Formats: sequence, C-alpha cells, structure tokens
Amino acid sequence: MKKKNLLSVLAGAVMAVGMAGVAMANAPAAPALQPEPTLTKEEFQKGQQIYFDRCSGCHGALHKGATGPDITPAKTRLKTLDALDKILFNGTDGGMPGWGKSGFMTKDETALMAKYVQIEAPMPPEWGMKEMKSSWKVHVPVDKRPTEPPKGKNWQNYFGVVERDKGQIAIIDGDTKKVLVTIPSGFATHILRTSMSGRYMFAIGRDGKATMMDLWADPPNLVAEVRTGLDARSIDTSKYKGFEDKYAVVGDYWPPHYVILKGDTLEPLKIVGTRGYTYDTNEYHPEPRVASIVASHHAPEWVLTLKETGVVLLVDYSKLNVGTVTETKINAERFLHDGGWDASKRYFMVAANARDTISVIDTVDRKLVKNIKTGTKPHPGRGANWVDPEFGPVWATVHLGEGLVSMISTDPKNPKAWTVVREWKLGGNSLFVKTHPKSKNVYCDNTINPNKSNVLTVFNIDKPTEAPREITFAKKVVHMEYDKDGGEVWVSLWDKEGEIVILDDKTLKEKARITGLNTPTGKFNVYNTQMDIY
Amino acid sequence: MKKKNLLSVLAGAVMAVGMAGVAMANAPAAPALQPEPTLTKEEFQKGQQIYFDRCSGCHGALHKGATGPDITPAKTRLKTLDALDKILFNGTDGGMPGWGKSGFMTKDETALMAKYVQIEAPMPPEWGMKEMKSSWKVHVPVDKRPTEPPKGKNWQNYFGVVERDKGQIAIIDGDTKKVLVTIPSGFATHILRTSMSGRYMFAIGRDGKATMMDLWADPPNLVAEVRTGLDARSIDTSKYKGFEDKYAVVGDYWPPHYVILKGDTLEPLKIVGTRGYTYDTNEYHPEPRVASIVASHHAPEWVLTLKETGVVLLVDYSKLNVGTVTETKINAERFLHDGGWDASKRYFMVAANARDTISVIDTVDRKLVKNIKTGTKPHPGRGANWVDPEFGPVWATVHLGEGLVSMISTDPKNPKAWTVVREWKLGGNSLFVKTHPKSKNVYCDNTINPNKSNVLTVFNIDKPTEAPREITFAKKVVHMEYDKDGGEVWVSLWDKEGEIVILDDKTLKEKARITGLNTPTGKFNVYNTQMDIY
Repeated sequence: MKKKNLLSVLAGAVMAVGMAGVAMANAPAAPALQPEPTLTKEEFQKGQQIYFDRCSGCHGALHKGATGPDITPAKTRLKTLDALDKILFNGTDGGMPGWGKSGFMTKDETALMAKYVQIEAPMPPEWGMKEMKSSWKVHVPVDKRPTEPPKGKNWQNYFGVVERDKGQIAIIDGDTKKVLVTIPSGFATHILRTSMSGRYMFAIGRDGKATMMDLWADPPNLVAEVRTGLDARSIDTSKYKGFEDKYAVVGDYWPPHYVILKGDTLEPLKIVGTRGYTYDTNEYHPEPRVASIVASHHAPEWVLTLKETGVVLLVDYSKLNVGTVTETKINAERFLHDGGWDASKRYFMVAANARDTISVIDTVDRKLVKNIKTGTKPHPGRGANWVDPEFGPVWATVHLGEGLVSMISTDPKNPKAWTVVREWKLGGNSLFVKTHPKSKNVYCDNTINPNKSNVLTVFNIDKPTEAPREITFAKKVVHMEYDKDGGEVWVSLWDKEGEIVILDDKTLKEKARITGLNTPTGKFNVYNTQMDIY
Repeated sequence: MKKKNLLSVLAGAVMAVGMAGVAMANAPAAPALQPEPTLTKEEFQKGQQIYFDRCSGCHGALHKGATGPDITPAKTRLKTLDALDKILFNGTDGGMPGWGKSGFMTKDETALMAKYVQIEAPMPPEWGMKEMKSSWKVHVPVDKRPTEPPKGKNWQNYFGVVERDKGQIAIIDGDTKKVLVTIPSGFATHILRTSMSGRYMFAIGRDGKATMMDLWADPPNLVAEVRTGLDARSIDTSKYKGFEDKYAVVGDYWPPHYVILKGDTLEPLKIVGTRGYTYDTNEYHPEPRVASIVASHHAPEWVLTLKETGVVLLVDYSKLNVGTVTETKINAERFLHDGGWDASKRYFMVAANARDTISVIDTVDRKLVKNIKTGTKPHPGRGANWVDPEFGPVWATVHLGEGLVSMISTDPKNPKAWTVVREWKLGGNSLFVKTHPKSKNVYCDNTINPNKSNVLTVFNIDKPTEAPREITFAKKVVHMEYDKDGGEVWVSLWDKEGEIVILDDKTLKEKARITGLNTPTGKFNVYNTQMDIY
C-alpha cells in the first residue's frame, strides 16, 4: 500500500475532473456579454441600498429571482445598459414596476441600477447566534412587568398599527380610538402578531429586527428586541395548549433561516437553516426565504413557507427543551408567499404567487391536498373565511395581478372541496380581503390599481351575485381589520399624513377617524390576531 | 409617497451597512500572513486530487476542519511552507498522520500540499437531480431479474467483500468459501448494506457512486448504479414493515445532502440538503457532511448523522409518496462519525470522535439520552453488543486514538445505564470491534498501531477480567465479520495481495483462507447485515 495501484489512480483522476470540471462541463456556449460596468464605492453602496429597498423582495438577495426573474450578470449582461434602464424606468407587462415612471427612483437612480444589476451580487454576511445575542436587548425584565391586565381597559380590543415609513407601531385603544403610545420598531415593519394570551405584541421589521410590546403595561411599552437577520418578513408565537406565549419564531429572508426565541424575552434559542433543494427539480438553492408563518392551535407547531424551494415546513417545537426540533417538509409549489388558516384551522392556504396558485396544506395528514390555480398572482394576506350560501365554507384570496376574488371550498365533505367555487370581479388589482364571522360583508382594497386605489369594494356574503358597493376615499386605501366584536371595520388611508377610517360594518358609514398617522399600513386587533379570526 | 422620509432613509442606510459591513466589523486585526503561493494548473490539479484522497475526510472539502483542524489560508498562511511541510511529512501528536514518513506521499508531494493548503479551497460544484439522473443506469430492469432465490444456494450466508483499492466488490459464498463474482463499484467503497429482504446489496464509493447488486441472480450481478454526489460515505435501505426494499438512501459528504432512491432501481427521488447551523454555537456551517446512516426496524425511518453540526436526523420516509419527508433534528455532539444500534434497536450509539464522546440517541423519545466520554477518538464501526456477566447488556466501541475498548450499559433499567461500565486495554489503537449473539468472544483489530497492526485481540465475554488472547498474522489485519450461524469469524489481511482468514469462533483456529483479494476491507454477511446483528 505504499503506492496506489493503477485503478485507484484512474478512479482518482476521474474524481479530480468530477470535483473541478463538472460546472464547466455543463455550461452551454456563452453568448456575448456586455462589459461589466464599474461603480464607485459610493455608487455601489447606493445601488445596494436601492436594491434592498426596491428589488430584493422579488429578485432575492443573490439576484437569482423568485417572484421576479433571475437578474444575475449572466442574464443582465445580455442586455445593454440602455435596455435595462428602460425596464427599470418604465416597468414591464410581466409585473416589474416602472420605478422611474412612478417617481420612486430618479432618472439617475434607474441608470445606476441598470449598472448595479450587471455586477455580481455581493454575498451578504451570515448572521448567527453571536450576532443575534449581541443585538438582543431586554428593556423591561419579566419580573418588572405587570402581573395583571390594566384596570378598566378593554386591552383585547387594542389595535397595533404599523406606521411603516416612520418605523414605529401605534397602539390604539379600540374602544376610545385614542393612540395610547407609539413604540419604535424595525425598519418598514411587515406584520404584527400577538402572543397566544394576547398580552404581548410582536413586530418584525424588514431589517430583521423583532420587537416585543407588553399590552398589560399602561401605556403599553417596548419590553425586548433582537435582530434576527438582515432581512425578514414573518413572526409568530406558540399557540398550542401548554405552550401559550412560551416561544416566538421569526422567519428571515437573509440569512435563509428561522429562529426560535424565548416568548417573554426574545432571547434567541435555536437557529434552523432553510438552504436546500427545490421541491420539483431538486436543484440546490442558496436562498430559500421564509415567506410566512402561522401558528397551529391544534398541535405544538408552526407552519412556515419557503419561497424559492416551494416547501412548507411544519415545525414541532414541543421538544425544544430537550434539544429536538421536528420539521415536516411538504412539497407544495414554488414562490410561496402569504397565507392563512381555513375556518377549521386544519388546512393552511398559501399563495404560490408567481405560479398563480393557492397550495392547500393538510396539517393533520401532513401533506399537500392540492395546488389550485386561481388568478394572476394571488395575494391573500391571511385570506378570509366565510360561509357561502350555495357552497358552504370558503376561504378567499385577492390578486396582485388582476381584479379578482377567488373563493375556494374548504369543506372536505363538499364534492367541490378545494376548487374555486365562485369568483368576484374587482375594480382593481388588490392587496387584501377581509371579513369576520359576525359580518355579512367582504371588503377588498384595490391598492395596486392606480385608478381605483382609493376605493374599497364591499360584497354581500348572502347575495353573492349582487353588484358590490364601493366606498371612495380621498387617499389610497389599504388593509382592513375588524374590532374584537366584529361591528367595526378599520381601514388605512396610506399617506405620510395618513389616517384610519373606522366604518360601521352594518351601515358602511364612517363612525370615527384617527388622524396624525404616518403611512399607517397593517392593523392588528389583539383578539382577532390571537384567535386567528380572519 | 414619492420620496422616502428621513427616518426611512436613515433606517435604509443602517441596513446597507448591515448588509455589507458586518463580516468586516467582526474580523479581528489580522496578523501578518505568508504570501499566497502560486501553483501551475497541473500542480493545482494534483494537489486537489491528493487533498481529496488524503485530507478532505478530516479537514472537509472547504478546508474548514472537522475531525482535523481548520486549514483555510487564514490559518495555514500563519505558518511557513517549511513548517507546513514538516507537519505533512511527519504528522503531529494531535492525530495528523505523517504522510511522508509512512510513505503515502513523496517529499515532493508533501511540499506541494504545503502550498496547496495555503490557497483558497475551490468551491466544489453542486450535484442535483439533473446530474444524478444523467449518471443513473439500470443495468438489469426489474422485470428481467429472477423472481426467486438461486436454487441450492445458501444466499443469506453470502458475503460482500470490499476490494478497496481495486474498486470492486467480491461476492463470496459463505458455505463454499468460493468467490462467486466480482462486481465493479465506486472508488474506494466505504461500506456495503443489504436491502431488508437481503436480496439486494448496496455499495457506496467515496466518489458518491452507489451500486446495487442482485444476490438472487446466479452469479450475483450489478443491476443499477447512480452517482449521488462527489464524495460520500453512507448508504442504507428502508427496513420497516410495509417498506421493505422500497427505498435506499445515500448520505453525501459533498454536496452536503442526502438522497432517497427507489429501492429496486436506485432512481433518485428526492434530495434533502443538510447545510445548517451547529447545534451548540448556532453558527452557519456550509458543509455538514452525512457521516453515517442506520435504518430503523421499529419505525419507517432512518437515522442520519451530520458531522460538522453535531445533529442526528430521524428521517421519516413513510409519506414520501405524497411528497412529504419528516426530519427530527436532535442536538447530539459535533463531529459525529460512525455508530450502530444497541441490541434492542431503540437506541442509536454514535461516536463524536473529535470530542471523545459516544452520543446516545433514543429513537422512541426522539432525543439525546446522553453524551458519554469514553476515550480518545472512539471508532465503533457499528459497535458490538453483548451481555456482560456483571453489567448486563452493553454496547462497545474501540478507539482510533488509544488501545481501549469501552463498554456502555444499554439497559435503561440499570442504574449504571449510559455509563462506561467496563474498559479493556488493547495492544493498539483500533478500527473495529465484533461479536455475535451466539459467541462468547469479542474480537478487536489493532490496525492503527504500526507495531501491532497484524494482531487480533480476543476477549472472553464470560471472563471479562481475564487477559485476552492474541492471534498474530503475517500481514496487517482489519475488520471482522461473522457468518450467518455465528460459528465463523472472517478477518481481512489488508494488502494488495490480500486474503480473508476464516477462524472457527470456538477454537480460534484457522478454518479456511480465501486468497487473491486486493486490499480486502469491510466484509458484510447478508443475514447479519439485513438483521443488524453486531
């Protein structure tokens, strides 16, 4: 054995080729590429910032594409700077916004971004336990917090309102309509969630910063924060009996991972990576982003969606105390985005928006029930559940890409279960749909349609073939939420000098108005959020 | 909303710094590094080949370390070429072999490798479904294979013998001691496993190539092959009732993933990535290698070990047909390597060899039972189970780093359960330990000790305090396996002109000898492998 025999050497040589040469061997003959542009350090940093603000959501931190196409240099350098600039400025029919045309970027900025996307994406740094721990702050220790709810307050009817561009959360008393306090949050907070008891409210910023507010404090206050990554969209809490308020979980875009946190302090406990293989073609993907999370009420687990790989995870947290996490990986569909429970809270309905599909996940049988084509780029938020007079229980989504409400039967005994049983045409492309178990109304915004973005469309559940009513506002309107009792609907007028308009759900008349809010976006009623009423 | 307000811009600027500057911010001031050497293309390729053959097992494809230390340029360029060459040539007390001294590398080769490890490791290519599918070959379709076992043959007493350096498997009839056939396999086959029925035998090469042999053919033949990656160590099959022979699974070193294959054709069905976070410090690791796999008899799952992250996976394959795989991730200990079942097949015992630890995994309660310190670098293979006259059921391991057999009580009712209840001193550092339920002997090789590598040490189970017997051979001896009835022990004389010596287990006398084998290494009796008897 002093020397390897011939066969071993040959096998080894094959290996060396295998290890070094495979990537090249598979590459097709490359067409001529445009030269790589040069940017100054300042220009590159500006490009990086604009990319994070405007582009990475659809094209990914590594530019490999998701909802939007792959824009790595191998693709972008097939186009001239001028052609790229035109796309950036004017947008495309495929769904690319016209960033210049709409005034979000200057002419100089779209020209800069044309160059920026012809350059190899910088690999963002990792963000592990060490980085999280050093960003973790407990502002109010557990033993310094109230031990009972605030006296005389109907705190379960509080609302958390995201003041998006101001980086803060307004906590509003739903009874008095008064802003109790504003609390700083991460950058451009994406959503709020409450703990199972309702006592704590969590915010997750696009910068990966999770903040935790105590609604029993009077006024509510910021009790803890932690930066979980560099880019994030989702947060939730443990809702199963015996685990109420015990854990929180954040899903990050970058790094691609989720983090389990201690439910009363946000102390990071466990990081689980999501890098892996696409469910269909089984190709490695370096950036499967956690798009959305819901908490099960029937099992000690969370449902997480991995956008790029099209996998839904059921994450069992019940043995975390002994160092075990169980992850059921369910093949669903690529480009998963947002979703919510059906009324029974057994089925999770999630949009694979770039595939025009709603994926239905059965959390009991632990598998995909069906991928259902609905319309162009479904965007349910968490969706809305009601009982259709003809088809029984349905869950509904609106669409980014067309003015359409699609109702899917969620009654497994219905022969039409898991099909689109009814469609409503909407005036405009939409972001959100909302109703409440006590309501007969379904509200849809038309935020994406520049001509109808100030209009709220209201359908009647009991008269589903009747033309909807329309409510017109002075400003762009987005996102609806009910109060605890289901008698009021809160809608946002989305502006730097924004407002919340509160409608009487019966009469559709304005009942109250809360002014002085900066870009009010998502609104989350404590009780409805803790109980997953939508 | 045409322009972002000040706060948003500020938050964005913080983000840009966060995305781009974090890695640098955390780096300590770097000490002076040696200059990066230059290598010709030929030298680099030679270095790459030698690295794969000799270094990557301990230091990883990315040079980040595992059983051996981190040898990325940030570390290696702190040393001179001369200092590195000395280590490569002479080895270290820490366990680094003296590759020059032992004759495995020439003086020129150790000098080359000193330079090679001062250069950034090339990122090996990915290997996904497309690559696997194009390497997949079914040599004998299922409908062309025998429908019953070969007449007049005691095929369950066949042995598969790895002829390591020849890249082939010898199938030997255990009754007649005749080599029935030799079948080409991957490079330097690491292990063999049988399907649950015993009919199929699987080999996994270090080059990631899985091959499948049909023992019902007369003579046995190669029926399918697939290259699952570029570097692999482990393979097993589905053993649970109702899933017998249905699936196979390969664990790869590179890419870091496992692949589920169709049990009768090796068609790749599903790839699952293992990149993730270390169990203890929760740092991202780009290369958590699948070190070993066993198949459960009591549940539809495999136990896989991830070396670098120290995580044990229980992988449930029962819902693969509906696109669902469930992965229970159990925190164990870093640098997991090889292991096997206790006698009850409930507990999986695995070496975390660089931590001098055996981790005990309870596959029913789905958690780590205990990390047990044994000795320097335990290396159990699958270990050995017997009943100690004083301590009852034990599972035992030998050690790479010292001459020591450690017996761990595996009876959960024993107050000493999961502790080392007895130790035997061995003449030399060892690779394997073996016994059989019908035997009163425990055999250990001393392969790692240059002075005793030709000696087999035999302990008496019933007289555990008695001095062991020693059997001396003309050549280096490695790896023991029993025949189906447990009356014979087969041992390998490891040489280019190698042999298998067959001992009568009662008398320890030589009973037969099979000559003409090239570097015979692991030997796997069909029945003992299918039933996990060790």
